[in-house]
Amino acid sequence: MSAAATVPLGSLPMDSLDDARVDLSLRYRNVRERTIRLAAPLSPEDCAVQSMEEASPVKWHLAHTSWFFENFVLEPAMPGYRPYHAEYRYLFNSYYHSMGARYPRPQRGLLTRPSLEEVLAYRRHVDHHVVALLAKGPDLDPERRASIELGLHHEQQHQELALTDVQHVLSHNPLHPAYCDAPEPAPVEPSPHAWHPYAEGLRWIGHEGRGFAFDCERPRHRVFVEAFALGSRLVTNAEYLAFAEDGGYERPELWLSDGWSVRQSRDWSAPLYWETRDGCRFVFTLAGLRRLRPEEPVCHVSYYEADAYARWTDARLPTEAEWESAAAAASSEGNFVESGRFHPAPAEPGTQGPSQLFGDVWEWTGSPFAPYPGYRPPPGPVGEYNGKFMCNQITLRGGSCATPRSHIRPTYRNFFFPDARWQFSGIRLARDAG
Amino acid sequence: MSAAATVPLGSLPMDSLDDARVDLSLRYRNVRERTIRLAAPLSPEDCAVQSMEEASPVKWHLAHTSWFFENFVLEPAMPGYRPYHAEYRYLFNSYYHSMGARYPRPQRGLLTRPSLEEVLAYRRHVDHHVVALLAKGPDLDPERRASIELGLHHEQQHQELALTDVQHVLSHNPLHPAYCDAPEPAPVEPSPHAWHPYAEGLRWIGHEGRGFAFDCERPRHRVFVEAFALGSRLVTNAEYLAFAEDGGYERPELWLSDGWSVRQSRDWSAPLYWETRDGCRFVFTLAGLRRLRPEEPVCHVSYYEADAYARWTDARLPTEAEWESAAAAASSEGNFVESGRFHPAPAEPGTQGPSQLFGDVWEWTGSPFAPYPGYRPPPGPVGEYNGKFMCNQITLRGGSCATPRSHIRPTYRNFFFPDARWQFSGIRLARDAG
Amino acid sequence: MSAAATVPLGSLPMDSLDDARVDLSLRYRNVRERTIRLAAPLSPEDCAVQSMEEASPVKWHLAHTSWFFENFVLEPAMPGYRPYHAEYRYLFNSYYHSMGARYPRPQRGLLTRPSLEEVLAYRRHVDHHVVALLAKGPDLDPERRASIELGLHHEQQHQELALTDVQHVLSHNPLHPAYCDAPEPAPVEPSPHAWHPYAEGLRWIGHEGRGFAFDCERPRHRVFVEAFALGSRLVTNAEYLAFAEDGGYERPELWLSDGWSVRQSRDWSAPLYWETRDGCRFVFTLAGLRRLRPEEPVCHVSYYEADAYARWTDARLPTEAEWESAAAAASSEGNFVESGRFHPAPAEPGTQGPSQLFGDVWEWTGSPFAPYPGYRPPPGPVGEYNGKFMCNQITLRGGSCATPRSHIRPTYRNFFFPDARWQFSGIRLARDAG
Amino acid sequence: MSAAATVPLGSLPMDSLDDARVDLSLRYRNVRERTIRLAAPLSPEDCAVQSMEEASPVKWHLAHTSWFFENFVLEPAMPGYRPYHAEYRYLFNSYYHSMGARYPRPQRGLLTRPSLEEVLAYRRHVDHHVVALLAKGPDLDPERRASIELGLHHEQQHQELALTDVQHVLSHNPLHPAYCDAPEPAPVEPSPHAWHPYAEGLRWIGHEGRGFAFDCERPRHRVFVEAFALGSRLVTNAEYLAFAEDGGYERPELWLSDGWSVRQSRDWSAPLYWETRDGCRFVFTLAGLRRLRPEEPVCHVSYYEADAYARWTDARLPTEAEWESAAAAASSEGNFVESGRFHPAPAEPGTQGPSQLFGDVWEWTGSPFAPYPGYRPPPGPVGEYNGKFMCNQITLRGGSCATPRSHIRPTYRNFFFPDARWQFSGIRLARDAG
Repeated sequence: MSAAATVPLGSLPMDSLDDARVDLSLRYRNVRERTIRLAAPLSPEDCAVQSMEEASPVKWHLAHTSWFFENFVLEPAMPGYRPYHAEYRYLFNSYYHSMGARYPRPQRGLLTRPSLEEVLAYRRHVDHHVVALLAKGPDLDPERRASIELGLHHEQQHQELALTDVQHVLSHNPLHPAYCDAPEPAPVEPSPHAWHPYAEGLRWIGHEGRGFAFDCERPRHRVFVEAFALGSRLVTNAEYLAFAEDGGYERPELWLSDGWSVRQSRDWSAPLYWETRDGCRFVFTLAGLRRLRPEEPVCHVSYYEADAYARWTDARLPTEAEWESAAAAASSEGNFVESGRFHPAPAEPGTQGPSQLFGDVWEWTGSPFAPYPGYRPPPGPVGEYNGKFMCNQITLRGGSCATPRSHIRPTYRNFFFPDARWQFSGIRLARDAG
Repeated sequence: MSAAATVPLGSLPMDSLDDARVDLSLRYRNVRERTIRLAAPLSPEDCAVQSMEEASPVKWHLAHTSWFFENFVLEPAMPGYRPYHAEYRYLFNSYYHSMGARYPRPQRGLLTRPSLEEVLAYRRHVDHHVVALLAKGPDLDPERRASIELGLHHEQQHQELALTDVQHVLSHNPLHPAYCDAPEPAPVEPSPHAWHPYAEGLRWIGHEGRGFAFDCERPRHRVFVEAFALGSRLVTNAEYLAFAEDGGYERPELWLSDGWSVRQSRDWSAPLYWETRDGCRFVFTLAGLRRLRPEEPVCHVSYYEADAYARWTDARLPTEAEWESAAAAASSEGNFVESGRFHPAPAEPGTQGPSQLFGDVWEWTGSPFAPYPGYRPPPGPVGEYNGKFMCNQITLRGGSCATPRSHIRPTYRNFFFPDARWQFSGIRLARDAG
Repeated sequence: MSAAATVPLGSLPMDSLDDARVDLSLRYRNVRERTIRLAAPLSPEDCAVQSMEEASPVKWHLAHTSWFFENFVLEPAMPGYRPYHAEYRYLFNSYYHSMGARYPRPQRGLLTRPSLEEVLAYRRHVDHHVVALLAKGPDLDPERRASIELGLHHEQQHQELALTDVQHVLSHNPLHPAYCDAPEPAPVEPSPHAWHPYAEGLRWIGHEGRGFAFDCERPRHRVFVEAFALGSRLVTNAEYLAFAEDGGYERPELWLSDGWSVRQSRDWSAPLYWETRDGCRFVFTLAGLRRLRPEEPVCHVSYYEADAYARWTDARLPTEAEWESAAAAASSEGNFVESGRFHPAPAEPGTQGPSQLFGDVWEWTGSPFAPYPGYRPPPGPVGEYNGKFMCNQITLRGGSCATPRSHIRPTYRNFFFPDARWQFSGIRLARDAG
Repeated sequence: MSAAATVPLGSLPMDSLDDARVDLSLRYRNVRERTIRLAAPLSPEDCAVQSMEEASPVKWHLAHTSWFFENFVLEPAMPGYRPYHAEYRYLFNSYYHSMGARYPRPQRGLLTRPSLEEVLAYRRHVDHHVVALLAKGPDLDPERRASIELGLHHEQQHQELALTDVQHVLSHNPLHPAYCDAPEPAPVEPSPHAWHPYAEGLRWIGHEGRGFAFDCERPRHRVFVEAFALGSRLVTNAEYLAFAEDGGYERPELWLSDGWSVRQSRDWSAPLYWETRDGCRFVFTLAGLRRLRPEEPVCHVSYYEADAYARWTDARLPTEAEWESAAAAASSEGNFVESGRFHPAPAEPGTQGPSQLFGDVWEWTGSPFAPYPGYRPPPGPVGEYNGKFMCNQITLRGGSCATPRSHIRPTYRNFFFPDARWQFSGIRLARDAG
């Protein structure tokens, strides 16, 4: 176990296995195995610690994702199933009131036991039983199958969270420890920023039909969208730096009122993980501290900063409906977790239409996370998955360099509080037409 | 000055004077005079104290509304105008960064000087100059005229806030002091709750054309609205009590996640101002402590409570677009501040279409306060009026028993944080059609 | 009522009437009347507001001191006595658990009712009954007499607190309102600082015998005191400024650990009420903002600052036993509240022995407030007067410019938390002999 | 490495080696080795986590004690010494301002790197060099020798803190993990509580002459002590339970004012680590959750609880001078860390004079931690060791079941804030004579 092991996820033919047409049993093993690989470069200490209430220890992610299968798949599917450990139902419940009491979230980092090894044994136990269940093949109850499918997408979400959470832990360490040893890429010339126009009209957005989607992506429905234009690529570090150097963090007129309060009370003057040493800008990444590269997309900004930056450029953030109607027609290729880069990459020049819509960074929209018309959470505990968070949070779109490629789609809605910065979150601009 | 003076606002022929067709000078004097009348039953101490950061002392409202005219009308209109007091620009600025530094909001209650009398003198000084300006009649610069118009609507907003803020102050006093001596109304039979259906379609909402409206009500634009039904009247105390007695405050599955956190940390078990004594329910009103009347609209609930109540009834809150398209066709009569009741009144039976859309209580919608497509804040300091608050707040519609009748319209958008309870805020239900 | 009325307390022959040999009835009227006089320059607003949890509104002081007589004198002395107002027992109880529940201390500033006028009427009611009781003369039960005596000393403590509390309120006002119109004194040449030696030995400290003293001043007992020296006068602004300019607020090695934490978190860089404008030092006083006079005693410093200053001079603060054994032999003349100055005065040159031991500023000792050997709080509610505060607080000695002359004595022990700065608290140095 | 390994410290002939007459080199190796043994039953996760600001991770204790030798011994003694790691000076400085900046204390638990293994390597490096230095024997500079001596006593303090800190971590775990596997002792009959009288007189307390003592134990000086009596043994769980069951936690009149505030805000109703399950009392110990044994000394109480308990019995806590003059004549045998019990033991019947003065639990005195007359902190960084904490803390005496036997002496002064409960702190009663 090393502090800077290479994580050769990209070199594995894993991703193709994630495809929804692939046998569920194969996909189950693939996704579960990948979680282990992502945690491999981390020490037991790295996996145990919690750096803030919003983040969880990696060990907790490893356990909770197994808890999900144990409680939502094994318990209902296997009469007489005996839980692996009587207390785990309590310890590794995240936020499901309907599953009973939970260990307090801010104290997850105090659970030195079970050890990392014991949690890995718990995972193996759960895997053994789920794989046995999946061996039933077509005889498996469709409801169980749907729960396993949900559990895999849930696991992928926690893969990304484990990475961003451990980056937050490591960022507090003045030794700047690296999670991985990703090579420093060669400098590239940034492609110029351009505007892509879209006509007004009634658009259908949201998911329908076959293929997995979370409840909050449904129902598919009509939205009237005014004519608008979308930026051709993500905002870069160089562009964001110009904002900061133009006094962006000192001019309240550029900020939302709540954003300015947060900026003041937390004394923000740059994105999270930026550092200045001897006049040079650095950024702390999963590969350690690196020189800030001007052509890379700006990352680790809050909604408040994204919004202020947009106002400074006399533009705005896209709405969900704008983003989705543009993305529906775009390529979903991008810089995902499989690249092993764990950091956003510069836009490649020469693409038709907006680039970087998928991967690299989650793009803050201007839309609060709210229910679609006709939305109803599913019955049972999984009804708590998304619906109860539809207040005070902002929707982000497109996935990031820490998202598995098979996890994302144009209708996918991620959401965080507007002050959150520890995700791979960045900026795409939009503006009114005319 | 008495602790329970009658405030016979309703008996005055003032309201008709507010009409926009009336001469602006007459309306100016009318609105400004009404602020004084509303403060009349209060002692200097009542007017000085601040009970929480979100609320302001009545004296501060009296001063700040004059500050608005002095800085946004007199300063630009009168070359060489000398401010009434050098420090007032600083002391009575609310949140306008572009007007310079501000006295810290949480400390407004520490300003024992200027005294109430001195603030009233400041008001007279400002009135003298504005009235002189208005005497120019048609020669008055239209921009000045627009600023005075804005100042009057601003003043009306602060009339309502002064009432709700002082109610909050008085509510902390175990003596239950009354602001007014409103008579206890005779009990009435509540009208039954029914559903009014609305068809799906593309609707225009927002303000356009003549007549005053705030910037956030613009531009008028199209929204696709699915078929829905709207409740025929406001939710009553009796109905809300059934929710509370059914364990509404103890069942997290009914609540938004953030709502449940707030409910837990503040230990809510009923609307603000409800009290139980010897098994009887009371409510603290501007007329003092009164028996809770089952047929009256429930009031002083947060968005979180409104949302949880709606979920408990298997309904939901209306969106802004739903509410506005229904209200556009409805009567705008209602129980406003002019009634002198200062408390919501039961629905009168026998009305066609949804009743109580205007007056009584502000109705929480399910819509976050967000910019309309194409929205741009106006240039200059008044650009800070609404736009910078378009995050984390929820829109309310329809005005309340503390709103001046001439202040409200179907397109009017009020907004508060979802945990706010000290306004006259209540619940109208909606549901999907079919 | 004026913002800067002269308070000619010094010109009244009141103080002589306070003498313990004077008839108790006469003293009662004198002390009670003086409270009213001290409040006279204040408006109802000034008297209503509370600027921090540790301070109380002047109106509350006016009411609580009457509550003390009503509950501790009238109630036990007059069978069938009916409280003036049923809720006042609750509203104006300070911290006596044995007297039942109390209105929450941090909310005293929310009590806009009863009004100042009503509180003054309450005072008159209580006075009427106590004076009637005192008319019994020698027939009055000695226990009642002792309670009245205690109530008068209690009232004098609140006279001082009312002044320091209202100064704190006014200090938040950028208008710098003045409580009084004390004339600016002529500059004087400061007397040089010298050391007065005291031999080692067993000393008796504490109160015994006739004459009023608080329970915490008893019992008189022996303390072994090593040889020491005491500073000849209080530390001046000029001396303290030298400390600040030598980086006193930037050098953690000069500070107690807790003191440094407080200094950091509250960003202290000077005593409370010091202000710098255009490079000049000012101090906010009860007479408004004034130039800082170098020869005046430094005032409004915390224990932490006093201790750090002493360390910087390679000296220390005196212990209680050192201070008291020196003060027992010294004159108790000084600059008390009767001077009408409301501010400490420079040391007058040419005195024998340490000067300024009484009046001007309370002197922080190095002694935590702890029970004397054999201390027992008195039975009943007044047992809560001092004993329960014997933890975490530091003893101060000698009275201040806001203390009534008749209130102080060499054995008097005042106490505040080490971070308190809003009292008239200053510095006297001591050092080990040899 | 096991969650419940036996720690057979008591079976080792280590303690005799600690004796001050033993060769310093031998003692160095002994003390350092024992720290490793105490940490042996803990996993890397157990050693990494921090449960509150006041406590530190075990790994941090392991590193900081080495830091102490590296910076206070090796750096000054070895010209050209190159620090083991450039950042460790910053990372593992506890509170020495004179040694430069420090990593923020509340974040010590975020340092997942260096790993436990790396910290152990750091220890070996430091040990190698210190042992080499000690090989000089009598040629070693006496100042260096004194620093090593101080470092050993410092290390012993951290041995105790590591145990109490990790107990606090483990206590948050609902699995109740055990640090050790200490056998449950046989029940014994508690010896009755009696009073031992002491005459009044001038006593000498504090350290002088040969033998190690901390600066705060000096200088030896005279204190006049009134006649008093001391309890014959520690207060037991049974006795303390009687207090709790008599409403001890519900009666403010028994508590200091600050204590009552803390009890209210933290909702205390029993000592730390007490749990009630199905009506039975348990206590969480380093050996896991155990039935509360009535005859054992009560432990993990704050000063506030100790003081309230004493008041409830109509007694008080002893002063430092009382305790020390009694302890000077008593046996210093007791239940120390070498017993391997890690928990206080019942008093053995039949002893002459007060028993349990040493070991078992630290005894809260009634004395604030203050400088002795003539106290001067030593020059240089170690001057920050004790002196700057002489405010707001309370002195405890006698050592505990987690203290090394060779670490304690009658003059030893430990100190904690009055609300601290996670140490092995208990209660000895005293009372005035007569």
